[in-house]
Formats: sequence, C-alpha cells, structure tokens
Amino acid sequence: MTEIKLNCPTPLHYEQIVMAHGGGGRLMQKLLDEVIQPIFNNPILEQKNDSAVLQLDHSKIAFTTDSYVVKPLFFPGGDIGKLAVCGTLNDLAMSGAKPLYLTCSLILEEGFAIQDLRRILMSMQETASAAGVCIVTGDTKVVEHGKADGVYINTAGVGSLEANQNCSVQAIRSGDVIIVNSDIGRHGLAVMLERDGFDFEHNIQSDCADVSGLVGCLTKAGIDLHCMRDLTRGGLASTLIELATTAGFRLEVKQQDLPVQDDVQSLCEILGFDPLYIANEGCFALIIPEDEAEKALKIMHSHALGEQAKIIGKVGDAVDRGVLTIKTEFGMTRVLDLLSGEQLPRIC
Amino acid sequence: MTEIKLNCPTPLHYEQIVMAHGGGGRLMQKLLDEVIQPIFNNPILEQKNDSAVLQLDHSKIAFTTDSYVVKPLFFPGGDIGKLAVCGTLNDLAMSGAKPLYLTCSLILEEGFAIQDLRRILMSMQETASAAGVCIVTGDTKVVEHGKADGVYINTAGVGSLEANQNCSVQAIRSGDVIIVNSDIGRHGLAVMLERDGFDFEHNIQSDCADVSGLVGCLTKAGIDLHCMRDLTRGGLASTLIELATTAGFRLEVKQQDLPVQDDVQSLCEILGFDPLYIANEGCFALIIPEDEAEKALKIMHSHALGEQAKIIGKVGDAVDRGVLTIKTEFGMTRVLDLLSGEQLPRIC
Repeated sequence: MTEIKLNCPTPLHYEQIVMAHGGGGRLMQKLLDEVIQPIFNNPILEQKNDSAVLQLDHSKIAFTTDSYVVKPLFFPGGDIGKLAVCGTLNDLAMSGAKPLYLTCSLILEEGFAIQDLRRILMSMQETASAAGVCIVTGDTKVVEHGKADGVYINTAGVGSLEANQNCSVQAIRSGDVIIVNSDIGRHGLAVMLERDGFDFEHNIQSDCADVSGLVGCLTKAGIDLHCMRDLTRGGLASTLIELATTAGFRLEVKQQDLPVQDDVQSLCEILGFDPLYIANEGCFALIIPEDEAEKALKIMHSHALGEQAKIIGKVGDAVDRGVLTIKTEFGMTRVLDLLSGEQLPRIC
Repeated sequence: MTEIKLNCPTPLHYEQIVMAHGGGGRLMQKLLDEVIQPIFNNPILEQKNDSAVLQLDHSKIAFTTDSYVVKPLFFPGGDIGKLAVCGTLNDLAMSGAKPLYLTCSLILEEGFAIQDLRRILMSMQETASAAGVCIVTGDTKVVEHGKADGVYINTAGVGSLEANQNCSVQAIRSGDVIIVNSDIGRHGLAVMLERDGFDFEHNIQSDCADVSGLVGCLTKAGIDLHCMRDLTRGGLASTLIELATTAGFRLEVKQQDLPVQDDVQSLCEILGFDPLYIANEGCFALIIPEDEAEKALKIMHSHALGEQAKIIGKVGDAVDRGVLTIKTEFGMTRVLDLLSGEQLPRIC
C-alpha cells in the first residue's frame, strides 16, 4: 500500500482519502472510529457486528450491506456477482441469521458490455438461488466512462434470527475455542494474480463461497455460537485483532494449526505477503465454548465447506484493549498488529 | 442525452451501457425488462414497487435500496448525503411503511477530502435523525483516483407495515384521483444549474425532502392509500407512465393543474426542458379513491411538505398496456411517452 507522507503530521493522519482507508487495517479503523462512527453514533452501530441485529415488531432480524469494487470483475473461483451475494449472505450468517432476501444496486460505467453484465447477474442469481434466497429489489445508476470501473455492486440483505440467538462479539468468553472452517489466503492471492498478470504456474482459486448453509447446520444443532466473523478484508489476523480489541480479551492462535495451502504459502513467501492478512471470502472464525467444540467440528466436517475445520486457538484472559498473539512454529509468542492498510487493494 | 447509433440494429438496442440506461426512461426500462428482471425473476421483484414488501416471520416489512451518484455532491437545497437518506426514506414511505433503519455504504475515491466526507455524513445523520431513523450498519470501500467521482453512496432501508397495508401499483382502481404534494421540476434543474455553472439569476432550490412524515399522517388517519410513487428519475411523466403501463389503466392529467414554479417554467422554456420529465426528490404522486380526496388534501395541506397538494388528474378506464394522457391548456389531449433516457443525467 502506498502511504502519502507529505503534509501529514503523523502517518495516520490524512486530510484526504487514501487507498488504505478501504483496506481493513488500522487506517480504515481510524476512519470508522474517528469520522463515521461519531457522526452516526447509535448503540446498534457501536456493537460492531457484521450485521445489525434489530427487533422489528414481533421479529428479530439481521440487516447488512456491502459494496463491491473488486478488480478484475472475473477471477479464478468467482466474479463480482458471486462475491456480492456470498459476502452479504455470509455477513447475515455471521450473526446467526438465516438469510432471506437481498437487494442488488448497480453502478454501471458508460461503455460496459451488457454481455458482461448478464454474466455477472446470472452469477448473482445462481448463488442466491442455491442459498434459497431471492433478490427482491434493486437500483441501476450509470456514470460517465472513467467515473467507475465497469460495475460496482451493492447488496444489502435481511435475515431472520431466533429470539434466543445472541451471537456477537459481546458474547465472547474466556476459555472459548477459535475454529476456522477452511484454509486461508486464497481469495486475495487469486484476485491479485489475475489482476496483475503474474506468470506463475498455480492452481489458486478464490475460496468465494456462501457459508450460510454450514452455519445453518450449526444453529440447527443448537451449538452455543458465541461469535462468528468472516475473514474478509485484512484476513484472519485483522479480524481477530478487531474482535480481541472490541471484546477486551487476549486471543491466542498457534501458527502450526493455521490451515494454509502449500501453493498459497509458497507464493506468499515469493511475493512477500503474509497469508494471515490476506482476504478470504468463504472462511470464517467461530468462537464457541470448549465443550461444544467436538460436536461443532463433527457437524462442520460433514459439510463441503467445513471439511478442513479445526481449532486454531483460544480466548485467553480479559485484558485492557485486547490483543491477538500467535505462537510461532519455533515456540515464540508474538503480538500481531493491524497493518496500516491492506496488502492487496480492491479485493472485494 | 447522447444516443450512439453506430452498429445498432435499432436505436434501443445496445451492446454496451450508455448514460440513458440510467435515466429513468425507455432505455432504462428496457435494461430492467430484458436483462435484469428475467435473470432475477421472482414474484416480489415483478410487483415493480419502490420497496419490496416482505412477510418475515410475524412481521410485514418494506425493504429498499438506492445508490446515489449525483454530480455535483453539493447543490442548492441539499447534498448527496441528504439525498441518499431522503431517497430511501421516501421509497419506504411509498409502500406505506414507517421507515425504521438505514444502512450507509460508501465508495470513496482516493484523494477525496475527508472534510467533505464529514459534511456529507453529518447531513445524512441530521436527515435520518429528523425522521427518527438510525443508520445501523455500513461499509466503506476506496477506489483509485479516477475510478469514482468523489463519493458514491448506497443506502438500504427497512420499515414496518401494518398487516392491512396494501399500497401498491396493483391496488390502483378506475375512478381514483391522482394527487401531488408539491410543485415539480426543481431538483433536476437545481442540480443541473449548479453542475453546469449557468449564469442565470435564479432561486431554484432542490425540493429534496423526506416525505415519510407526511405519509405517516395519511396512514395514521386511515386514508385508503391505493398507490404512491416518488417522482424521481424521469419526473412526473415517466413515473405515471410506468404506473399506467404496469397497472393497465389510462391515467389522465390536466396540464393546467400541474404545479410548476414560475422560475422553473421560465428556465425550462429557455433551456428546452420539460418540467414533466424533470426529477424531483420531495414530490410524490398519491392515488386514492375519489371520496377520500377531501380528507387526504386537508391532512396534506396542514403539513409543510403538502401545503401545495392538489388533484392533478384521475385514473380512467382499464386499457391494454396502459397509457398516460395530458389535457393541454388549449383543450387538446395528447399521449405522453417515455423519453429514451433522462434530460439530465446523474441527478440522483
């Protein structure tokens, strides 16, 4: 990430938006904490969950939104349409909700091929339909050539929650285990390799997937889901750091337990990336009581998106401000910190 | 609007997106009917209302979304933030719903001034807060300089509906009257004059406003709301044509009853625009049984946003495909047709 340092009192103070403000790292956190959150200030937003959980007349619902600006629009393992549907389904699922309805709002660039638009919309429909969800309303805007990048898509979603479902960062407890459903680092790398035209022989595909079905199996089985998060922008490390900070706990992971494909690991070493910070689009972290782990893992292992599920760490003591530590393969423990931005911009 | 006619079998067939695809006119209708609708095909989307009306467990809710790409970001009478909140509140209100919660998703261009962002967010918060609504979740993306135009904003919203509220295009009946709450044509002109730096002396301000409070007064009074529509892209004419077509009725308006400010009328004559097709952001059409009109008008006249409310026409007979006619000041009746695009692009 480029950091403009001219005229900046500190490296984190900017008067203009820089790419890192969208990267899921420290600068984005600063923008949220110092600009957006204080203005919109309300208790629901402050909970900092992937979806807002709302009491609506007689129903409890989850409500979420995301805009997608991934570049390129088509990449190994998916496209912006599949991503836009999976991302919003996953955000709903992370609150323990059953996704029900989606919107689709398009910002199209003048000159964009209608054939590509069709392909993207069909991908959205296919993904939504497989999840049993309808795209029920939408919007279409067009801007001049050079004022967008093909197409940007916003999806918002609503889902229903059981009255007793309180899956949230506030429910994390000391002694809980941290589980991930699959290997990390594929999505960001797949997009980057496609975008930048690297000439490596590789089979890296984005992990882009709707995990709401898998989460549904866990809720149906009555697993006591304390907290879930999909490991998107900023990857596993940034997500767990944010959870640790918001919840005020020490989260501890073990490097040797982190599932990373060999080719992802090799490419990261060549390119100087850390898979811990690379975005995923079908991976999530699940935080549950230790005595529920065996049952949860059994359920996950029997689902295609959870075959690799494993415990990667645990929730330690409550500590001021929270912290994420990693025990390296050599036995040392180090603290993981947010990057200022994202290693790879525009991956979602 | 520019129409590219090279390589096009008909003027309405394009292989690439053109500005008119976002203009609220015939080309946009074609994109919706021939590309988007057939792919997402489902009964809720087919109802073609401003919000999707959904039965969710024990509640009936309205769900809507819009992306905003208005240029310039600040204009007389509002800014993109106020517009993004009013637009979504109004879409919810048009289904008869009480707006409850909004999302805010930002696509920021690298280099955008954070001070301008603050100003826009404060405008959103002020408008939402005045409507008694919270912005409960959101998203922030950043794209490179030259890949957006300052900021694009998406707002999605949910609102609650009474179980017996069935305000929709399907409820329109022959004999109903058509009421508008205020004068038309201001928003599009105000934006255009600001954008293009015309050197006219004028006091034209956008009508950008949240009409959900006014609609709330009508629902509380138990007015039998058959159908409502805000008169945004494409203006009064395009909106009523779409209603006529979807409902299969002849809608009839009288030119002499259409409220247009003198300076709007004069500027339109100078610039060659038709106020009937200019976008509004605080005007709506209300279609109700004739015997409810007196009561409805009385309620509207006592609200700041309905002081000018008046009957502008009526719903005639059911006819194949539907049609909108206007009786001119000279007594002639003519059929109004959709423009291919919008007279003024990027006004919302």
